Amino acid sequence: MKIILTINWVNIIKNSTFVLMNIEVCYTPQAYPLFHKPNTIVVVIDVLRATSAIATAFYNGVAKMIPVATVEEAQVYKNKGYLVAAERNGEIIEGFDLGNSPFGYMNAKVKGKTIAITTTNGTQAIEAAKYADTLIIGSFLNLEVVVEYLKSQKKDVLFLCAGWKNKFNLEDTLFAGAVADALISKSYFDTNCDSTIAALELYRLAKFDLYKFLSNSSHRNRLAKLDLERDIKYCLTPNQCPVIVILKDNYLIKL
Amino acid sequence: MKIILTINWVNIIKNSTFVLMNIEVCYTPQAYPLFHKPNTIVVVIDVLRATSAIATAFYNGVAKMIPVATVEEAQVYKNKGYLVAAERNGEIIEGFDLGNSPFGYMNAKVKGKTIAITTTNGTQAIEAAKYADTLIIGSFLNLEVVVEYLKSQKKDVLFLCAGWKNKFNLEDTLFAGAVADALISKSYFDTNCDSTIAALELYRLAKFDLYKFLSNSSHRNRLAKLDLERDIKYCLTPNQCPVIVILKDNYLIKL
Repeated sequence: MKIILTINWVNIIKNSTFVLMNIEVCYTPQAYPLFHKPNTIVVVIDVLRATSAIATAFYNGVAKMIPVATVEEAQVYKNKGYLVAAERNGEIIEGFDLGNSPFGYMNAKVKGKTIAITTTNGTQAIEAAKYADTLIIGSFLNLEVVVEYLKSQKKDVLFLCAGWKNKFNLEDTLFAGAVADALISKSYFDTNCDSTIAALELYRLAKFDLYKFLSNSSHRNRLAKLDLERDIKYCLTPNQCPVIVILKDNYLIKL
Repeated sequence: MKIILTINWVNIIKNSTFVLMNIEVCYTPQAYPLFHKPNTIVVVIDVLRATSAIATAFYNGVAKMIPVATVEEAQVYKNKGYLVAAERNGEIIEGFDLGNSPFGYMNAKVKGKTIAITTTNGTQAIEAAKYADTLIIGSFLNLEVVVEYLKSQKKDVLFLCAGWKNKFNLEDTLFAGAVADALISKSYFDTNCDSTIAALELYRLAKFDLYKFLSNSSHRNRLAKLDLERDIKYCLTPNQCPVIVILKDNYLIKL
Protein backbone atom coordinates (compact mmCIF):
# COMPACT_ATOMS: atom_id res chain seq x y z
CA MET A 1 0.00 0.00 0.00
CA LYS A 2 1.24 3.45 -0.93
CA ILE A 3 0.42 6.36 1.31
CA ILE A 4 0.40 9.78 -0.35
CA LEU A 5 0.94 12.72 1.95
CA THR A 6 -0.27 15.99 0.59
CA ILE A 7 1.62 18.80 2.21
CA ASN A 8 0.48 22.39 1.95
CA TRP A 9 3.95 23.89 1.64
CA VAL A 10 2.63 27.40 1.11
CA ASN A 11 0.97 27.44 4.50
CA ILE A 12 3.93 25.81 6.19
CA ILE A 13 6.30 28.39 4.73
CA LYS A 14 3.98 31.31 5.51
CA ASN A 15 3.64 30.18 9.14
CA SER A 16 7.27 29.30 9.68
CA THR A 17 9.98 31.70 10.76
CA PHE A 18 11.83 31.11 7.48
CA VAL A 19 9.78 33.53 5.42
CA LEU A 20 11.86 36.53 4.42
CA MET A 21 9.53 39.50 4.34
CA ASN A 22 10.38 42.41 2.10
CA ILE A 23 11.53 45.87 3.17
CA GLU A 24 11.26 49.05 1.11
CA VAL A 25 12.03 52.67 1.95
CA CYS A 26 10.11 55.57 0.42
CA TYR A 27 11.98 58.83 0.94
CA THR A 28 9.12 61.32 0.56
CA PRO A 29 5.32 61.49 0.93
CA GLN A 30 5.11 62.59 -2.74
CA ALA A 31 6.49 59.22 -3.86
CA TYR A 32 4.23 57.12 -1.61
CA PRO A 33 1.69 56.16 -4.31
CA LEU A 34 4.53 54.38 -6.19
CA PHE A 35 5.16 52.16 -3.15
CA HIS A 36 1.62 51.51 -1.87
CA LYS A 37 0.86 47.79 -1.64
CA PRO A 38 -1.70 45.65 0.19
CA ASN A 39 -0.73 43.67 3.31
CA THR A 40 2.15 45.99 4.11
CA ILE A 41 2.94 47.77 7.36
CA VAL A 42 3.86 51.40 6.76
CA VAL A 43 6.18 52.96 9.34
CA VAL A 44 5.88 56.75 9.14
CA ILE A 45 9.09 58.49 10.21
CA ASP A 46 9.65 62.14 11.10
CA VAL A 47 12.55 61.97 13.55
CA LEU A 48 12.92 65.78 13.80
CA ARG A 49 10.35 65.96 15.30
CA ALA A 50 6.74 64.91 14.68
CA THR A 51 6.98 61.16 15.24
CA SER A 52 9.36 61.71 18.16
CA ALA A 53 6.80 64.08 19.66
CA ILE A 54 3.99 61.57 19.07
CA ALA A 55 5.92 58.72 20.73
CA THR A 56 6.68 61.03 23.66
CA ALA A 57 3.03 62.10 23.90
CA PHE A 58 1.73 58.53 24.16
CA TYR A 59 4.51 57.55 26.57
CA ASN A 60 3.30 60.43 28.74
CA GLY A 61 -0.29 59.26 28.76
CA VAL A 62 -1.98 61.02 25.84
CA ALA A 63 -5.12 59.00 24.99
CA LYS A 64 -5.52 59.73 21.29
CA MET A 65 -4.11 62.00 18.60
CA ILE A 66 -5.89 63.18 15.48
CA PRO A 67 -3.39 63.86 12.68
CA VAL A 68 -4.61 66.49 10.23
CA ALA A 69 -2.89 67.83 7.12
CA THR A 70 -3.88 71.51 7.25
CA VAL A 71 -3.89 74.35 9.74
CA GLU A 72 -7.55 74.98 8.84
CA GLU A 73 -8.53 71.49 9.99
CA ALA A 74 -6.49 72.00 13.16
CA GLN A 75 -8.39 75.24 13.79
CA VAL A 76 -11.70 73.37 13.58
CA TYR A 77 -10.57 71.09 16.44
CA LYS A 78 -9.31 74.12 18.38
CA ASN A 79 -12.74 75.75 18.03
CA LYS A 80 -14.34 72.56 19.36
CA GLY A 81 -12.20 72.83 22.50
CA TYR A 82 -9.53 70.21 21.79
CA LEU A 83 -5.89 70.61 22.73
CA VAL A 84 -4.24 71.27 19.37
CA ALA A 85 -0.63 71.00 18.20
CA ALA A 86 0.21 73.01 15.07
CA GLU A 87 3.72 73.49 13.72
CA ARG A 88 5.11 74.94 10.49
CA ASN A 89 8.80 75.39 9.67
CA GLY A 90 9.89 74.33 13.16
CA GLU A 91 7.76 76.75 15.16
CA ILE A 92 4.39 76.63 16.98
CA ILE A 93 1.72 78.49 15.03
CA GLU A 94 0.41 81.38 17.11
CA GLY A 95 -2.80 80.63 18.93
CA PHE A 96 -2.22 76.87 19.25
CA ASP A 97 -1.34 74.89 22.37
CA LEU A 98 1.63 72.83 21.28
CA GLY A 99 4.16 72.41 18.47
CA ASN A 100 6.21 69.34 17.73
CA SER A 101 8.82 69.66 20.45
CA PRO A 102 8.71 66.38 22.40
CA PHE A 103 9.28 68.38 25.60
CA GLY A 104 5.86 70.01 25.18
CA TYR A 105 4.29 66.59 25.79
CA MET A 106 6.14 65.81 29.03
CA ASN A 107 3.43 67.50 30.96
CA ALA A 108 0.63 66.31 33.21
CA LYS A 109 -1.86 68.45 31.30
CA VAL A 110 -1.72 66.10 28.27
CA LYS A 111 -2.52 62.94 30.27
CA GLY A 112 -5.71 61.25 29.08
CA LYS A 113 -6.33 63.93 26.47
CA THR A 114 -7.13 63.71 22.76
CA ILE A 115 -4.85 66.06 20.82
CA ALA A 116 -5.23 67.13 17.19
CA ILE A 117 -1.89 67.65 15.46
CA THR A 118 -0.64 69.17 12.19
CA THR A 119 3.05 69.50 11.30
CA THR A 120 5.12 70.57 8.28
CA ASN A 121 6.04 67.05 7.19
CA GLY A 122 5.03 64.28 9.63
CA THR A 123 1.28 64.63 9.38
CA GLN A 124 1.56 65.01 5.58
CA ALA A 125 3.22 61.59 5.50
CA ILE A 126 0.44 60.09 7.66
CA GLU A 127 -2.13 61.65 5.31
CA ALA A 128 -0.37 60.17 2.25
CA ALA A 129 -0.38 56.64 3.72
CA LYS A 130 -3.67 56.65 5.63
CA TYR A 131 -5.10 53.83 3.51
CA ALA A 132 -2.20 51.50 4.27
CA ASP A 133 -3.04 48.06 5.67
CA THR A 134 -1.37 49.12 8.94
CA LEU A 135 0.30 52.44 9.76
CA ILE A 136 2.57 52.86 12.77
CA ILE A 137 4.79 55.68 13.99
CA GLY A 138 8.59 55.28 14.06
CA SER A 139 11.31 57.28 15.78
CA PHE A 140 14.56 56.52 17.57
CA LEU A 141 12.57 56.97 20.79
CA ASN A 142 10.64 53.75 20.11
CA LEU A 143 13.21 51.93 17.92
CA GLU A 144 13.39 48.60 19.74
CA VAL A 145 9.65 48.12 20.18
CA VAL A 146 9.12 48.93 16.49
CA VAL A 147 11.67 46.24 15.56
CA GLU A 148 9.94 43.71 17.84
CA TYR A 149 6.49 44.63 16.51
CA LEU A 150 7.58 44.22 12.87
CA LYS A 151 9.22 40.87 13.63
CA SER A 152 5.98 39.66 15.24
CA GLN A 153 3.71 40.67 12.35
CA LYS A 154 5.40 38.77 9.50
CA LYS A 155 4.29 41.27 6.89
CA ASP A 156 6.18 43.31 4.33
CA VAL A 157 7.35 46.67 5.65
CA LEU A 158 7.50 50.05 3.98
CA PHE A 159 9.32 52.87 5.73
CA LEU A 160 7.82 56.20 4.73
CA CYS A 161 10.17 59.09 5.50
CA ALA A 162 8.42 62.41 6.02
CA GLY A 163 11.46 64.25 4.63
CA TRP A 164 11.38 68.03 4.35
CA LYS A 165 8.69 69.41 2.05
CA ASN A 166 8.95 66.33 -0.14
CA LYS A 167 12.74 66.38 -0.28
CA PHE A 168 14.90 63.54 1.07
CA ASN A 169 16.27 63.97 4.56
CA LEU A 170 19.02 62.17 6.40
CA GLU A 171 17.62 61.61 9.89
CA ASP A 172 14.48 59.80 8.72
CA THR A 173 16.59 57.67 6.36
CA LEU A 174 18.94 56.76 9.21
CA PHE A 175 16.02 55.55 11.32
CA ALA A 176 14.72 53.43 8.41
CA GLY A 177 18.26 52.05 8.10
CA ALA A 178 18.44 51.31 11.84
CA VAL A 179 15.25 49.23 11.82
CA ALA A 180 16.13 47.55 8.51
CA ASP A 181 19.56 46.69 9.94
CA ALA A 182 18.01 45.04 13.00
CA LEU A 183 15.47 43.09 10.92
CA ILE A 184 17.84 41.97 8.17
CA SER A 185 20.71 41.02 10.48
CA LYS A 186 18.36 38.67 12.33
CA SER A 187 17.34 37.13 8.97
CA TYR A 188 13.65 37.88 9.22
CA PHE A 189 13.62 40.27 6.30
CA ASP A 190 15.33 40.90 3.00
CA THR A 191 15.38 43.68 0.46
CA ASN A 192 15.96 44.24 -3.23
CA CYS A 193 15.23 47.93 -2.94
CA ASP A 194 17.99 50.46 -3.64
CA SER A 195 16.64 53.03 -1.19
CA THR A 196 16.74 50.39 1.58
CA ILE A 197 20.34 49.48 0.69
CA ALA A 198 21.27 53.17 0.82
CA ALA A 199 19.50 53.64 4.17
CA LEU A 200 21.29 50.59 5.60
CA GLU A 201 24.72 51.73 4.41
CA LEU A 202 24.17 55.26 5.73
CA TYR A 203 22.98 53.97 9.11
CA ARG A 204 25.99 51.68 9.43
CA LEU A 205 28.24 54.69 8.78
CA ALA A 206 26.36 56.93 11.19
CA LYS A 207 25.38 54.67 14.05
CA PHE A 208 28.34 55.30 16.33
CA ASP A 209 27.51 59.01 16.51
CA LEU A 210 24.20 59.96 14.89
CA TYR A 211 24.43 63.52 16.21
CA LYS A 212 27.85 64.09 14.66
CA PHE A 213 26.87 62.41 11.38
CA LEU A 214 23.98 64.86 11.09
CA SER A 215 26.14 67.89 11.83
CA ASN A 216 25.87 69.17 8.24
CA SER A 217 22.32 67.99 7.63
CA SER A 218 19.80 70.59 6.62
CA HIS A 219 17.15 70.09 9.30
CA ARG A 220 19.58 69.80 12.20
CA ASN A 221 20.94 73.17 11.14
CA ARG A 222 17.44 74.58 10.66
CA LEU A 223 16.50 73.54 14.23
CA ALA A 224 19.84 74.65 15.67
CA LYS A 225 19.08 78.16 14.41
CA LEU A 226 15.81 77.98 16.35
CA ASP A 227 17.82 77.05 19.48
CA LEU A 228 16.49 73.49 19.49
CA GLU A 229 19.71 71.51 20.07
CA ARG A 230 18.15 69.92 23.16
CA ASP A 231 15.28 68.58 21.02
CA ILE A 232 17.71 67.15 18.46
CA LYS A 233 19.78 65.30 21.07
CA TYR A 234 16.66 63.89 22.72
CA CYS A 235 15.15 62.74 19.40
CA LEU A 236 18.35 60.87 18.54
CA THR A 237 18.47 58.96 21.84
CA PRO A 238 17.01 55.48 21.28
CA ASN A 239 14.33 53.77 23.32
CA GLN A 240 13.21 56.57 25.64
CA CYS A 241 9.53 55.91 24.84
CA PRO A 242 8.82 52.21 24.24
CA VAL A 243 5.31 52.55 22.78
CA ILE A 244 3.75 51.32 19.55
CA VAL A 245 1.46 53.98 18.09
CA ILE A 246 -0.94 52.87 15.37
CA LEU A 247 -3.47 54.64 13.13
CA LYS A 248 -7.00 53.29 13.69
CA ASP A 249 -10.04 54.95 12.10
CA ASN A 250 -8.10 58.21 11.61
CA TYR A 251 -6.95 58.31 15.24
CA LEU A 252 -3.47 57.56 16.48
CA ILE A 253 -3.67 55.29 19.50
CA LYS A 254 -1.26 53.30 21.67
CA LEU A 255 -1.38 49.60 20.90
CA MET B 1 41.64 114.41 5.20
CA LYS B 2 39.82 111.11 5.40
CA ILE B 3 39.62 108.92 2.32
CA ILE B 4 36.71 106.53 2.15
CA LEU B 5 37.15 103.55 -0.12
CA THR B 6 33.94 101.94 -1.24
CA ILE B 7 34.55 98.35 -2.21
CA ASN B 8 31.98 96.34 -4.09
CA TRP B 9 32.58 93.10 -2.26
CA VAL B 10 29.71 91.33 -3.98
CA ASN B 11 31.31 91.76 -7.39
CA ILE B 12 34.75 90.89 -6.11
CA ILE B 13 33.43 87.70 -4.54
CA LYS B 14 31.34 86.77 -7.59
CA ASN B 15 34.33 87.21 -9.90
CA SER B 16 36.87 85.52 -7.68
CA THR B 17 37.56 81.81 -7.45
CA PHE B 18 36.36 81.88 -3.84
CA VAL B 19 32.68 81.66 -4.68
CA LEU B 20 31.26 78.42 -3.37
CA MET B 21 28.56 77.31 -5.76
CA ASN B 22 25.77 75.13 -4.47
CA ILE B 23 25.18 71.45 -5.25
CA GLU B 24 21.88 69.61 -4.93
CA VAL B 25 20.84 66.09 -5.89
CA CYS B 26 17.33 65.21 -7.01
CA TYR B 27 16.77 61.46 -6.88
CA THR B 28 13.86 61.12 -9.32
CA PRO B 29 12.32 62.96 -12.29
CA GLN B 30 9.04 63.16 -10.34
CA ALA B 31 10.69 65.39 -7.73
CA TYR B 32 12.40 67.69 -10.26
CA PRO B 33 9.86 70.56 -10.04
CA LEU B 34 10.77 70.94 -6.33
CA PHE B 35 14.41 71.56 -7.29
CA HIS B 36 14.07 73.66 -10.46
CA LYS B 37 15.91 76.98 -10.19
CA PRO B 38 17.22 79.57 -12.64
CA ASN B 39 20.93 79.81 -13.47
CA THR B 40 21.54 76.18 -12.57
CA ILE B 41 23.24 73.47 -14.59
CA VAL B 42 21.27 70.23 -14.50
CA VAL B 43 23.29 67.05 -14.94
CA VAL B 44 20.96 64.24 -16.03
CA ILE B 45 22.23 60.83 -14.92
CA ASP B 46 21.13 57.38 -16.04
CA VAL B 47 24.26 55.30 -15.56
CA LEU B 48 22.54 52.00 -16.46
CA ARG B 49 22.35 52.85 -19.32
CA ALA B 50 20.84 55.79 -21.19
CA THR B 51 23.39 58.51 -20.40
CA SER B 52 26.24 56.01 -20.77
CA ALA B 53 24.85 55.10 -24.20
CA ILE B 54 24.52 58.78 -25.14
CA ALA B 55 28.11 59.57 -24.10
CA THR B 56 29.27 56.54 -26.10
CA ALA B 57 27.23 57.59 -29.12
CA PHE B 58 28.76 61.07 -29.28
CA TYR B 59 32.23 59.71 -28.60
CA ASN B 60 31.67 57.48 -31.65
CA GLY B 61 30.70 60.34 -33.91
CA VAL B 62 26.92 60.65 -33.65
CA ALA B 63 25.99 64.17 -34.81
CA LYS B 64 22.78 64.81 -32.85
CA MET B 65 20.29 62.94 -30.69
CA ILE B 66 16.64 63.79 -30.22
CA PRO B 67 15.43 62.63 -26.80
CA VAL B 68 11.71 61.85 -26.74
CA ALA B 69 9.55 60.69 -23.85
CA THR B 70 7.21 58.26 -25.59
CA VAL B 71 7.41 55.33 -27.98
CA GLU B 72 4.78 57.05 -30.14
CA GLU B 73 7.06 60.05 -30.67
CA ALA B 74 9.94 57.69 -31.44
CA GLN B 75 7.76 55.98 -34.05
CA VAL B 76 7.13 59.32 -35.77
CA TYR B 77 10.90 59.75 -36.24
CA LYS B 78 11.21 56.14 -37.40
CA ASN B 79 8.53 56.78 -40.03
CA LYS B 80 10.48 59.83 -41.21
CA GLY B 81 13.53 57.62 -41.83
CA TYR B 82 15.66 58.47 -38.79
CA LEU B 83 17.74 55.92 -36.91
CA VAL B 84 15.75 55.41 -33.71
CA ALA B 85 16.69 53.98 -30.31
CA ALA B 86 13.78 52.75 -28.20
CA GLU B 87 14.14 50.84 -24.95
CA ARG B 88 11.71 49.80 -22.25
CA ASN B 89 12.55 47.66 -19.21
CA GLY B 90 16.07 47.00 -20.43
CA GLU B 91 15.21 45.67 -23.89
CA ILE B 92 15.04 47.10 -27.44
CA ILE B 93 11.45 47.58 -28.54
CA GLU B 94 10.76 45.43 -31.59
CA GLY B 95 11.02 47.27 -34.87
CA PHE B 96 13.54 49.89 -33.67
CA ASP B 97 17.22 50.14 -34.57
CA LEU B 98 18.92 50.49 -31.21
CA GLY B 99 18.30 50.20 -27.48
CA ASN B 100 20.35 51.75 -24.71
CA SER B 101 23.27 49.36 -24.73
CA PRO B 102 26.39 51.50 -25.24
CA PHE B 103 27.83 48.75 -27.44
CA GLY B 104 25.12 49.42 -30.00
CA TYR B 105 26.69 52.82 -30.63
CA MET B 106 30.24 51.59 -31.22
CA ASN B 107 29.48 51.18 -34.87
CA ALA B 108 30.45 53.05 -38.00
CA LYS B 109 26.81 53.20 -39.10
CA VAL B 110 26.00 55.79 -36.40
CA LYS B 111 28.76 58.22 -37.45
CA GLY B 112 27.41 61.60 -38.50
CA LYS B 113 23.82 60.48 -37.92
CA THR B 114 20.94 62.10 -36.00
CA ILE B 115 19.33 59.50 -33.73
CA ALA B 116 16.01 59.82 -31.91
CA ILE B 117 16.00 58.06 -28.53
CA THR B 118 13.44 57.06 -25.90
CA THR B 119 14.30 55.03 -22.79
CA THR B 120 12.51 53.87 -19.63
CA ASN B 121 14.07 56.48 -17.36
CA GLY B 122 16.82 58.58 -18.92
CA THR B 123 14.78 60.38 -21.53
CA GLN B 124 12.01 60.94 -18.95
CA ALA B 125 14.55 62.79 -16.81
CA ILE B 126 15.64 64.91 -19.80
CA GLU B 127 11.98 65.69 -20.50
CA ALA B 128 11.40 66.73 -16.86
CA ALA B 129 14.34 69.16 -16.90
CA LYS B 130 14.21 70.43 -20.49
CA TYR B 131 13.59 74.02 -19.36
CA ALA B 132 16.71 74.10 -17.20
CA ASP B 133 19.20 76.93 -17.81
CA THR B 134 21.68 74.30 -19.04
CA LEU B 135 21.22 70.53 -19.28
CA ILE B 136 24.14 68.17 -19.74
CA ILE B 137 24.49 64.40 -19.69
CA GLY B 138 26.46 62.65 -16.95
CA SER B 139 27.83 59.12 -16.68
CA PHE B 140 30.97 57.50 -15.34
CA LEU B 141 32.11 57.35 -18.97
CA ASN B 142 32.51 61.14 -19.06
CA LEU B 143 33.10 61.79 -15.33
CA GLU B 144 36.27 63.88 -15.50
CA VAL B 145 35.16 66.15 -18.32
CA VAL B 146 31.87 66.78 -16.50
CA VAL B 147 33.82 67.80 -13.38
CA GLU B 148 36.02 70.16 -15.41
CA TYR B 149 33.03 71.64 -17.23
CA LEU B 150 31.16 72.34 -13.97
CA LYS B 151 34.25 73.93 -12.41
CA SER B 152 34.59 76.22 -15.45
CA GLN B 153 30.96 77.40 -15.44
CA LYS B 154 30.76 78.75 -11.86
CA LYS B 155 27.05 78.05 -11.62
CA ASP B 156 24.98 76.09 -9.14
CA VAL B 157 24.61 72.42 -10.04
CA LEU B 158 21.66 70.08 -9.75
CA PHE B 159 22.20 66.37 -10.35
CA LEU B 160 19.01 64.80 -11.63
CA CYS B 161 19.05 61.04 -11.23
CA ALA B 162 16.82 59.18 -13.67
CA GLY B 163 16.23 56.45 -11.09
CA TRP B 164 13.96 53.55 -11.96
CA LYS B 165 10.35 54.51 -12.73
CA ASN B 166 10.58 57.41 -10.29
CA LYS B 167 12.17 55.36 -7.54
CA PHE B 168 15.64 56.09 -6.14
CA ASN B 169 18.50 54.09 -7.57
CA LEU B 170 22.03 53.54 -6.35
CA GLU B 171 24.16 53.82 -9.48
CA ASP B 172 22.89 57.29 -10.45
CA THR B 173 23.33 58.45 -6.86
CA LEU B 174 26.91 57.15 -6.82
CA PHE B 175 27.75 59.14 -9.95
CA ALA B 176 26.25 62.31 -8.41
CA GLY B 177 28.37 61.59 -5.33
CA ALA B 178 31.49 61.08 -7.46
CA VAL B 179 31.17 64.47 -9.17
CA ALA B 180 30.14 66.22 -5.93
CA ASP B 181 33.16 64.68 -4.20
CA ALA B 182 35.52 66.01 -6.87
CA LEU B 183 33.96 69.49 -6.80
CA ILE B 184 33.70 69.84 -3.02
CA SER B 185 37.14 68.42 -2.25
CA LYS B 186 38.65 71.08 -4.50
CA SER B 187 36.65 73.76 -2.64
CA TYR B 188 34.74 75.09 -5.61
CA PHE B 189 31.37 73.98 -4.36
CA ASP B 190 29.47 73.43 -1.14
CA THR B 191 26.17 71.85 -0.18
CA ASN B 192 23.53 72.07 2.49
CA CYS B 193 21.40 69.44 0.83
CA ASP B 194 20.79 66.11 2.58
CA SER B 195 20.52 64.14 -0.66
CA THR B 196 23.96 65.45 -1.71
CA ILE B 197 25.45 64.48 1.67
CA ALA B 198 23.97 60.99 1.27
CA ALA B 199 25.28 60.69 -2.31
CA LEU B 200 28.76 61.77 -1.16
CA GLU B 201 28.85 59.32 1.74
CA LEU B 202 27.63 56.46 -0.44
CA TYR B 203 30.17 57.23 -3.15
CA ARG B 204 33.00 57.35 -0.62
CA LEU B 205 31.94 53.89 0.60
CA ALA B 206 31.58 52.48 -2.89
CA LYS B 207 34.39 54.08 -4.87
CA PHE B 208 37.01 51.36 -4.43
CA ASP B 209 34.74 48.81 -6.10
CA LEU B 210 31.59 50.25 -7.65
CA TYR B 211 30.68 46.95 -9.28
CA LYS B 212 30.83 45.06 -5.98
CA PHE B 213 28.97 47.80 -4.09
CA LEU B 214 26.14 47.49 -6.60
CA SER B 215 26.00 43.70 -6.36
CA ASN B 216 22.63 43.78 -4.55
CA SER B 217 21.24 46.81 -6.34
CA SER B 218 17.97 46.36 -8.15
CA HIS B 219 18.94 47.49 -11.64
CA ARG B 220 22.25 45.64 -11.74
CA ASN B 221 20.29 42.48 -10.98
CA ARG B 222 17.61 43.38 -13.52
CA LEU B 223 20.27 43.77 -16.24
CA ALA B 224 22.19 40.68 -15.11
CA LYS B 225 19.05 38.64 -15.73
CA LEU B 226 19.05 40.03 -19.28
CA ASP B 227 22.68 38.85 -19.64
CA LEU B 228 24.01 42.41 -19.69
CA GLU B 229 26.95 42.10 -17.24
CA ARG B 230 29.29 43.40 -19.96
CA ASP B 231 27.20 46.57 -20.24
CA ILE B 232 27.27 47.09 -16.47
CA LYS B 233 31.05 46.74 -16.23
CA TYR B 234 31.57 49.11 -19.15
CA CYS B 235 29.16 51.73 -17.75
CA LEU B 236 31.02 51.72 -14.41
CA THR B 237 34.44 52.30 -15.99
CA PRO B 238 35.28 56.01 -15.75
CA ASN B 239 36.43 58.28 -18.54
CA GLN B 240 36.05 56.03 -21.58
CA CYS B 241 34.18 58.77 -23.50
CA PRO B 242 35.44 62.26 -22.64
CA VAL B 243 32.64 64.26 -24.26
CA ILE B 244 30.31 66.97 -22.93
CA VAL B 245 26.81 66.47 -24.30
CA ILE B 246 24.39 69.37 -23.92
CA LEU B 247 20.71 69.93 -24.73
CA LYS B 248 20.25 72.75 -27.25
CA ASP B 249 16.84 73.49 -28.82
CA ASN B 250 15.59 69.98 -27.96
CA TYR B 251 18.64 68.32 -29.56
CA LEU B 252 21.49 66.70 -27.69
CA ILE B 253 24.78 67.80 -29.22
CA LYS B 254 28.48 67.52 -28.39
CA LEU B 255 29.88 70.74 -26.98
